[in-house]
Amino acid sequence: MSASSKSHARIGEQVWAKMPKINAEFFCLTYGTMVVQLMKDFEDVREVNKKLESMGHGIGMRLIDEFLAKSGINNCHDFSETCDVIAKVAFKMFLGVGVDVANWNADKTACSLLLYDNPLNDFVEIPPNTNLLYSNILCGVIRGALEMIMMKVDAFFVRDVLRGDDVNEIRVELKERMVSEMDDQYKEG
Amino acid sequence: MSASSKSHARIGEQVWAKMPKINAEFFCLTYGTMVVQLMKDFEDVREVNKKLESMGHGIGMRLIDEFLAKSGINNCHDFSETCDVIAKVAFKMFLGVGVDVANWNADKTACSLLLYDNPLNDFVEIPPNTNLLYSNILCGVIRGALEMIMMKVDAFFVRDVLRGDDVNEIRVELKERMVSEMDDQYKEG
Repeated sequence: MSASSKSHARIGEQVWAKMPKINAEFFCLTYGTMVVQLMKDFEDVREVNKKLESMGHGIGMRLIDEFLAKSGINNCHDFSETCDVIAKVAFKMFLGVGVDVANWNADKTACSLLLYDNPLNDFVEIPPNTNLLYSNILCGVIRGALEMIMMKVDAFFVRDVLRGDDVNEIRVELKERMVSEMDDQYKEG
Repeated sequence: MSASSKSHARIGEQVWAKMPKINAEFFCLTYGTMVVQLMKDFEDVREVNKKLESMGHGIGMRLIDEFLAKSGINNCHDFSETCDVIAKVAFKMFLGVGVDVANWNADKTACSLLLYDNPLNDFVEIPPNTNLLYSNILCGVIRGALEMIMMKVDAFFVRDVLRGDDVNEIRVELKERMVSEMDDQYKEG
C-alpha cells in the first residue's frame, strides 16, 4: 500500500469510528427484502439490475455530501487518487469494510475495486444461473456520487461471490471529466 | 426504571457493542429509496403501509434467531417482560437506540414503545396529510419476531414524529399466546 493509500485507510478508520451506525444484519435483511420485492415487480432480472443501479445512483448523489462533510477530503488530484479514496475511505465509512484497488489499465482511467467482504451479501444465496446483480446498488452509488463531483463513470460488477466467484469485483471506468459552469466562466474570464 | 429493566438496558449496550454494523445514513437512504419505490408501485398509500408491515414481518421472523443467539435471553416470564426486552435489548441491538415502555393497559396485555429517536426517520420529510406510515416495517418486525416465540400481537404506530407528533409511539397488543405442539404433547402426557 502506498503512503497516501495508508493515510486514506487511516482516515477511513477514524471516520468510521465516529459515524452513527445500525445493525448490519437488519440492514442486510431489509435490503434482501427489497430485492425480492423488485424481483416480484419486474419480470426481467435485467430490469431489476437496472433498477438497483438507478436506486443507488440517487443514493450516491445524496451520500456524497455526507462523505465530503465527514471525511474532510475535498480534493483529489486525479482519478487514481479518487478511486483510492472510494476504496479506503468511502467503503469503510459507509459499509465498514476496506476495499482494494487493482487492475489499472495503462492510461489510468479504469480500475477494479475488490471487496473481499461485502456486507450486503451476508446470509444471502441466489439461485444458480440467475443473472441477478444482487449488490448492483453499490455500482449506482459510486456512479451517482462521482457524478456530483463532475466525473462521469461506468461502474459494474465483473465478479461476485454470490455467483461463485472468489471475490467481489466492481470495475470503475472513467468516461468523462465534466466541466462545471464555474470552470467555464473561469476560462472565459 | 426497574432493576430488571436496567439489567436489560445493560445487556442491550453490551450486545450492541459487539454487533457488526453499517453506516446509519446509508441504511436510511436505502430504506427511503425502497419506500419511494413502493409509493410508485402501489397507488394506495394504505397498500404501501401494509406492504412495509408485511416486509417487516418476514424480517422479524428471521431476526429473532439472531436475537436469541446474540442476546443470551431465551425466556421471558410474561408479556410485560417481553416488551421490556424488546425496548431495552432488541431496539438497542438492531437500531442502536433505547426505547421506553409506557401506557400499559390494566390487564397488562397492551403497551406502547416510545422511540424518542427513530434512526429510519433521519433526513426524511413526508408531505403533509399523507397517511404514509413511513417506519411501518418496524411494526412488522415486532409482529414477525414475536410470532416465532408463540405470541400473536398487533403492532401499529399511534404517533409519528414525521407526521408532527412529539414522539414515535408503537402500540403493541397481545392477542393470543399460541401453544406449540410440544406443549400439547406435554399436557396429554
